[in-house]
Amino acid sequence: MSLENIKDFCGIFGVFGAPNDLASKYTYYGLYAQQHRGQESAGIVSSDGEKVHSYMKMGLVNDVFKKAESFEKLKGHMAIGHVRYSTTGESSEFNIQPLLVKTGFGHLAIAHNGNLINAHTLRKDLESQGSIFRTTTDSEILIHLIAKSKFENLEDKIIDAVSQIKGAFSVAIMSETQLFIVRDPNGFRPLSYAKKDSTHIFASETCAFDLLDAEFIKEIKPGEMIIVDSDGVREKEIPVPKNPSFCIFELVYFSRPDSKLNGECVDKVRRKFGKKLAEEALKTVDADIVISVPDSSNTAALGFASASNIKFEIGLIRNHYIGRTFINPEQNMRDLSVKLKFNTVGGVLKGRKVVVVDDSIVRGTTLKKLVKLLKKAEPKEIHICISSPPVKHPCYYGMNFPTSEELIANHMSPAELKDWLKVDSLTYLSVESMVEAAEVSLDKSGFCTACFTGNYPENVLPTPNSKQSCQ
Amino acid sequence: MSLENIKDFCGIFGVFGAPNDLASKYTYYGLYAQQHRGQESAGIVSSDGEKVHSYMKMGLVNDVFKKAESFEKLKGHMAIGHVRYSTTGESSEFNIQPLLVKTGFGHLAIAHNGNLINAHTLRKDLESQGSIFRTTTDSEILIHLIAKSKFENLEDKIIDAVSQIKGAFSVAIMSETQLFIVRDPNGFRPLSYAKKDSTHIFASETCAFDLLDAEFIKEIKPGEMIIVDSDGVREKEIPVPKNPSFCIFELVYFSRPDSKLNGECVDKVRRKFGKKLAEEALKTVDADIVISVPDSSNTAALGFASASNIKFEIGLIRNHYIGRTFINPEQNMRDLSVKLKFNTVGGVLKGRKVVVVDDSIVRGTTLKKLVKLLKKAEPKEIHICISSPPVKHPCYYGMNFPTSEELIANHMSPAELKDWLKVDSLTYLSVESMVEAAEVSLDKSGFCTACFTGNYPENVLPTPNSKQSCQ
Amino acid sequence: MSLENIKDFCGIFGVFGAPNDLASKYTYYGLYAQQHRGQESAGIVSSDGEKVHSYMKMGLVNDVFKKAESFEKLKGHMAIGHVRYSTTGESSEFNIQPLLVKTGFGHLAIAHNGNLINAHTLRKDLESQGSIFRTTTDSEILIHLIAKSKFENLEDKIIDAVSQIKGAFSVAIMSETQLFIVRDPNGFRPLSYAKKDSTHIFASETCAFDLLDAEFIKEIKPGEMIIVDSDGVREKEIPVPKNPSFCIFELVYFSRPDSKLNGECVDKVRRKFGKKLAEEALKTVDADIVISVPDSSNTAALGFASASNIKFEIGLIRNHYIGRTFINPEQNMRDLSVKLKFNTVGGVLKGRKVVVVDDSIVRGTTLKKLVKLLKKAEPKEIHICISSPPVKHPCYYGMNFPTSEELIANHMSPAELKDWLKVDSLTYLSVESMVEAAEVSLDKSGFCTACFTGNYPENVLPTPNSKQSCQ
Amino acid sequence: MSLENIKDFCGIFGVFGAPNDLASKYTYYGLYAQQHRGQESAGIVSSDGEKVHSYMKMGLVNDVFKKAESFEKLKGHMAIGHVRYSTTGESSEFNIQPLLVKTGFGHLAIAHNGNLINAHTLRKDLESQGSIFRTTTDSEILIHLIAKSKFENLEDKIIDAVSQIKGAFSVAIMSETQLFIVRDPNGFRPLSYAKKDSTHIFASETCAFDLLDAEFIKEIKPGEMIIVDSDGVREKEIPVPKNPSFCIFELVYFSRPDSKLNGECVDKVRRKFGKKLAEEALKTVDADIVISVPDSSNTAALGFASASNIKFEIGLIRNHYIGRTFINPEQNMRDLSVKLKFNTVGGVLKGRKVVVVDDSIVRGTTLKKLVKLLKKAEPKEIHICISSPPVKHPCYYGMNFPTSEELIANHMSPAELKDWLKVDSLTYLSVESMVEAAEVSLDKSGFCTACFTGNYPENVLPTPNSKQSCQ
Repeated sequence: MSLENIKDFCGIFGVFGAPNDLASKYTYYGLYAQQHRGQESAGIVSSDGEKVHSYMKMGLVNDVFKKAESFEKLKGHMAIGHVRYSTTGESSEFNIQPLLVKTGFGHLAIAHNGNLINAHTLRKDLESQGSIFRTTTDSEILIHLIAKSKFENLEDKIIDAVSQIKGAFSVAIMSETQLFIVRDPNGFRPLSYAKKDSTHIFASETCAFDLLDAEFIKEIKPGEMIIVDSDGVREKEIPVPKNPSFCIFELVYFSRPDSKLNGECVDKVRRKFGKKLAEEALKTVDADIVISVPDSSNTAALGFASASNIKFEIGLIRNHYIGRTFINPEQNMRDLSVKLKFNTVGGVLKGRKVVVVDDSIVRGTTLKKLVKLLKKAEPKEIHICISSPPVKHPCYYGMNFPTSEELIANHMSPAELKDWLKVDSLTYLSVESMVEAAEVSLDKSGFCTACFTGNYPENVLPTPNSKQSCQ
Repeated sequence: MSLENIKDFCGIFGVFGAPNDLASKYTYYGLYAQQHRGQESAGIVSSDGEKVHSYMKMGLVNDVFKKAESFEKLKGHMAIGHVRYSTTGESSEFNIQPLLVKTGFGHLAIAHNGNLINAHTLRKDLESQGSIFRTTTDSEILIHLIAKSKFENLEDKIIDAVSQIKGAFSVAIMSETQLFIVRDPNGFRPLSYAKKDSTHIFASETCAFDLLDAEFIKEIKPGEMIIVDSDGVREKEIPVPKNPSFCIFELVYFSRPDSKLNGECVDKVRRKFGKKLAEEALKTVDADIVISVPDSSNTAALGFASASNIKFEIGLIRNHYIGRTFINPEQNMRDLSVKLKFNTVGGVLKGRKVVVVDDSIVRGTTLKKLVKLLKKAEPKEIHICISSPPVKHPCYYGMNFPTSEELIANHMSPAELKDWLKVDSLTYLSVESMVEAAEVSLDKSGFCTACFTGNYPENVLPTPNSKQSCQ
Repeated sequence: MSLENIKDFCGIFGVFGAPNDLASKYTYYGLYAQQHRGQESAGIVSSDGEKVHSYMKMGLVNDVFKKAESFEKLKGHMAIGHVRYSTTGESSEFNIQPLLVKTGFGHLAIAHNGNLINAHTLRKDLESQGSIFRTTTDSEILIHLIAKSKFENLEDKIIDAVSQIKGAFSVAIMSETQLFIVRDPNGFRPLSYAKKDSTHIFASETCAFDLLDAEFIKEIKPGEMIIVDSDGVREKEIPVPKNPSFCIFELVYFSRPDSKLNGECVDKVRRKFGKKLAEEALKTVDADIVISVPDSSNTAALGFASASNIKFEIGLIRNHYIGRTFINPEQNMRDLSVKLKFNTVGGVLKGRKVVVVDDSIVRGTTLKKLVKLLKKAEPKEIHICISSPPVKHPCYYGMNFPTSEELIANHMSPAELKDWLKVDSLTYLSVESMVEAAEVSLDKSGFCTACFTGNYPENVLPTPNSKQSCQ
Repeated sequence: MSLENIKDFCGIFGVFGAPNDLASKYTYYGLYAQQHRGQESAGIVSSDGEKVHSYMKMGLVNDVFKKAESFEKLKGHMAIGHVRYSTTGESSEFNIQPLLVKTGFGHLAIAHNGNLINAHTLRKDLESQGSIFRTTTDSEILIHLIAKSKFENLEDKIIDAVSQIKGAFSVAIMSETQLFIVRDPNGFRPLSYAKKDSTHIFASETCAFDLLDAEFIKEIKPGEMIIVDSDGVREKEIPVPKNPSFCIFELVYFSRPDSKLNGECVDKVRRKFGKKLAEEALKTVDADIVISVPDSSNTAALGFASASNIKFEIGLIRNHYIGRTFINPEQNMRDLSVKLKFNTVGGVLKGRKVVVVDDSIVRGTTLKKLVKLLKKAEPKEIHICISSPPVKHPCYYGMNFPTSEELIANHMSPAELKDWLKVDSLTYLSVESMVEAAEVSLDKSGFCTACFTGNYPENVLPTPNSKQSCQ
């Protein structure tokens, strides 16, 4: 999984009230800390209360903002920012966020993380009324709905608009003078609020606050809207039924381990995943050492080791120099993608019965290559332990899994998969244990586990046209 | 004038029916030939009948399309292209054309040369209906009007839309399957039609046809629309009153000398400007040689020499290596901008009475520097002869002159200007002579001379919100 | 230390006998695997037996060779390559390696890792004979000596040349038809030999062989020269006294953990460092958990945990997105360099007595920032345990330490350093323990420990003009 | 010829005594003005009396120095600069000038225009003594000779070195404190001296002085050396026989028309070429108009028109946007290279008997394409008049003509060439007339006409190893 590049999620950031034109700089740091949520493009829109300024490009945060001059234009006390996942559509440049438009009531900029399940219908509807679209993002639908709302003020227009959309959305919306932060009624994607002195800061993940030395205030509640302007901060509720369904895959894999959810480090949850996994695996597995597939499975492996009293070892080294541009001039190099990233630490594995902890299996192809790599180090046995259940169902709320046909768990039972991987055992964490472990951070009923269980939240059941993408 | 960089105009191009995915390549050549009409950005949108493909960037045609790979994506038998003038707005990247959007009836791409005088009103109107704008171009207004039209088919929607807009527009519009070419009822900007074998080709200027070895068919008439699709070519008339008002400044300065208008080379018209100018100047001027400010005044100078029997000489050398990126590290270098472009040919000028033919005076500042440069070569007398009348009025139809205050002819009479320039005489071509000379290509009444005379065409009188810009 | 960027070392690579022009591609992979040894520039010189071809640039391997076309020119069955450390000299572009020159007996290319102590004298000598220098590298001295040697054939010329140089050098030298691999009589820097089918491969570190699936043959012995050409492989001895003195700092920090030395993984040595360190620290330290400063101290920390029975935890997360171009637009952000790289995992540290294992202390400034970061997570106690002794002396053999004045161990005793860092204890590994632990790979007497002890190898005692740099 | 890109020549520049670190900036302007002498690379080396600083790259002057920051490093009151022609050797980056090296007596930088006929011998000699070469330029030979000279001071070393080299060389040599300007005893390439206030300035062509408002002092004499340092300016003579042989092709084509030679504009000489050509052509040619192939033949055409009383017209328009990067995505576009550069001005040529003046014929292929282009405009007759004699012999003094086999005049008599071109007549200027016309600037005997006549100057007769290239 660590290798499979789930191309998904995005990260958002918002600032209001920063002194000395620092809003765009805070946003830069905030996006940098959330780089793992999107490596395709990065952008910032700022406002000084009268004019909006924007800078956005394809590339990593570091590369997009590689010159200090970029910030000269991005003046103002407020800003929103966005990092976007990597893909290769021909129109991708048009889709860079924040999306910035001019409406009858001024400029609007939007940074969006999530995916709408009624995007297709809304878009058809808008197009039939003569609306034109320049992007393929759901965010442009939201902007159209806001622009077309009959309500008087912007706040009501936004409430009107978000009441019509269904699905996952954590959004930051900015006019020349106001900042709006909204989280969908299911709260699929994380979204938190902090303060640095008198500056209001919002981010997908709390790791952004740490870099800025900002003080965590609270998570935005599902269905909550925050308005910040010169009058101060107000909270509102979107007038639709709430149904908390936080994406459990954020805990399994996506969020940074040092980010917090309800005051609990993601890392701690992963450790519990590892402990529960050990309890389940030890019924059948007997091993000498536990290793992780670095870095995403490190804590789960540590939890596994601690619960099982099997020694934790470092058996795989990860090469962090691999960039986006690695070419493969020699087409015959086998399994290169895995070998470029990992190498085994010879002596550690040789002759040992090894538990390998990984966070998830999606297509299974890279795990197969990894097993081949491990076998060259001549372990006595290989036991694959996965700190999540089999991924079997598509996600309609922002996680860009491959199609059901490509999900290997739809084709092979764990036993078959074990044989295909040529390993000595394969253990998945059960859904029950996963949810129980995750409970440290949220109520058991508060998670969306649809990708594992197929139980999609009732208020946002997918339709034939629900697509999988991230804005 | 040659130095003053009137930042204006754009160039458009359209192709239908090209074999072997050549449409985008033809467009590349067509844009290259029209590079003088816009150096800020270049773009191409193509269609293979089902999918549209696009590639556009800031920069010269050569730089935007510097790799053959750019064309791999741009598949199809039809394409439109656009070159845009150079400016430095912060949002300029958003404004690169062709503008490509998705509507309820498919994709629409538009390449637009010209300027609308009712853009402000139309835009306010559209915004009040909830339309959102991503660019500051008039072209986006046109796209909105098309998308919102209640008519059934695209052809009628476009007629509906262009009937609502007022001003200058030579446009190419493309859907997945159809190409539409429209010229405004005044015919301000040039637009012509040619064929290369069975391929239909449209361009702002005919020099694009020469490079492609395409055969000139005709000029698009003011108020005419051409539709090309798999059923062939049809001509239609926009149901609004026509009022031919071809921009005479295209003949004075902007069009390439080898482009044709009504079968007549622009170059030939410029020669006549020079002849007429000689007739007017010779009443007062007595000179030894005639030189031009290369290259834009070459033919007018030649015409002047031929009519006056004064010897034509090359007294100024132009350095063509000057690029867009010249830095000026030594701020104290005086008159550098002129000296980088021109140098005098010493012996030619020394001790001579010299007629210097230039095409126009806008701000006057660079001409002043040029005179200083010429004086170093120690001519006996300098007689400035301008092959157009004083520029005194703003253009609302696509030519981005400086403001009225910046136009030097609004501050100084020819006599005062002569003194300020410190030359021995200054002669402008009269409006009458200019129009008479231009008649070779069009009926006398068919020109817009508003920038010289203030006589704006009656059907498109400027309003307070008419702005000056080029799409 | 992990933070301090010792700007040093280089990595070299050589290939002979690759089929199908693969030599340059193998070299590309080999340099990529050794990217940690130099991030400033990368270069490859290849030969097809008649012509030599070269490509080299500033930047990471990935960036220098970002297009497959780079390899089209690099034809041939033999090649050498080089990665160089990062610095900011104005002449740095001239110094990119391999250095390629034309001599009276053909082309010579050289890739060099190390540093000569008699460079200054040799250079003065050569200059006084009229030699000219284009680089500031020691490698150019070696080339001059080869070119000036009176011996007949290249092999003897090289032996003649390397017999005159003193210091650290692992070099690959290539003519149109021959490849020479030489290691200095002290064997300061690593250098190994492998085969992939019938292709001969040489690299600074064995991790390069793993990526290529090449089979390790042996380490090049101190003072050994290998010659490979169409006649096969020959080994020779440089006729100077040998004095094995392998740089122990390669084991402490620099080499990749998955590289092998005498068949032993570097990782395993680091684990022993950790164990020995635990033995020494536990006399005074009592702790709840052990954490590492990732990634360089991971194994030492694991060894510490294993020997001490204190629980290994992950308390610091490393952000691997940090690139070379990070700007700091907000100058007031305190301790940014550390915070960009690391974040604490809140719950893990809070209220705990924490052992922090780091590999070394050079200037001490970043460790101080790291301690501040750790304290925010509110551990009960912090015990710094360093898996090497205090660094007190300059290195003249290729490791670019700061000056003696900048080495904090020259200013503060461990006790003083502890107070300055504001931690509860500070333990260094003793020299004895370090050498004992390292013995797994080499005989105890076979190490250079001069940076810790000041005992420079007798055959290459530094002179006043010995400088510190890497070729 | 205008189309054939003789890839040759270089331009050099030198400054001593510039105030306020302006030396490198003056050099920038000086190189810019001489851009026509070399478009491959540009470089500057400056000195503040103690340290030398350098910046050089592939590309046009504008592109190499596109940031003002480039000049921050280039401190000092003295500098030399170089522009180099365009070619595509794999080692071309190594050859960028000025060449900068470190010798036993300090740094030496050299900027060289010309070509040595004994380069091969000297190089073999140096190599046999153990010298190594990093470039393939003759300049490196000169540097070696200087470095190896047994004389005490630098001035004598340089005299010693230049006394050993034979061929064409206009060079600027710089140490930390002194500037040396040397011109070969034949004076093949131009080299002049000017002052701007108290700053000494040297350039290949005087057009560089005009841009800087510097006052022309004199041409450097064949065999003269100028030394400038803190003691002032001294002139010396190289102790070898002088044999003035100025390259007449500089006058025919290469030098900028506004540059002066012996106080006479190159332009004026070209006009005389045109006049003489008219005298010779009119014996057989009867025509309506004279046109030039712009811009290089403009003045010759004007001279032709003036002497013949045939009307000068502009029949060809040159597109100056063509850059170095034009791709040709459609391989079937015939004669594209010519059509991209030129277009005919329709009406001017139709039905007319046209004299086309071009400066020279080398390969003849582009002239053939040009004739095809002209014929489309339906002239009645085409008479090609070339303002130089047939090019038949290679140049060993810096002009990179194609090989003798590629020179069309070695394969076809003028009559045959006329037929092959399908024109109505073809007239070359005779050698006698050319030299007579050139006499305005130099004594008749003072020219090298070897490329036309095969009469190579006796003191530098070519040897089998004389190569053709420019440093």
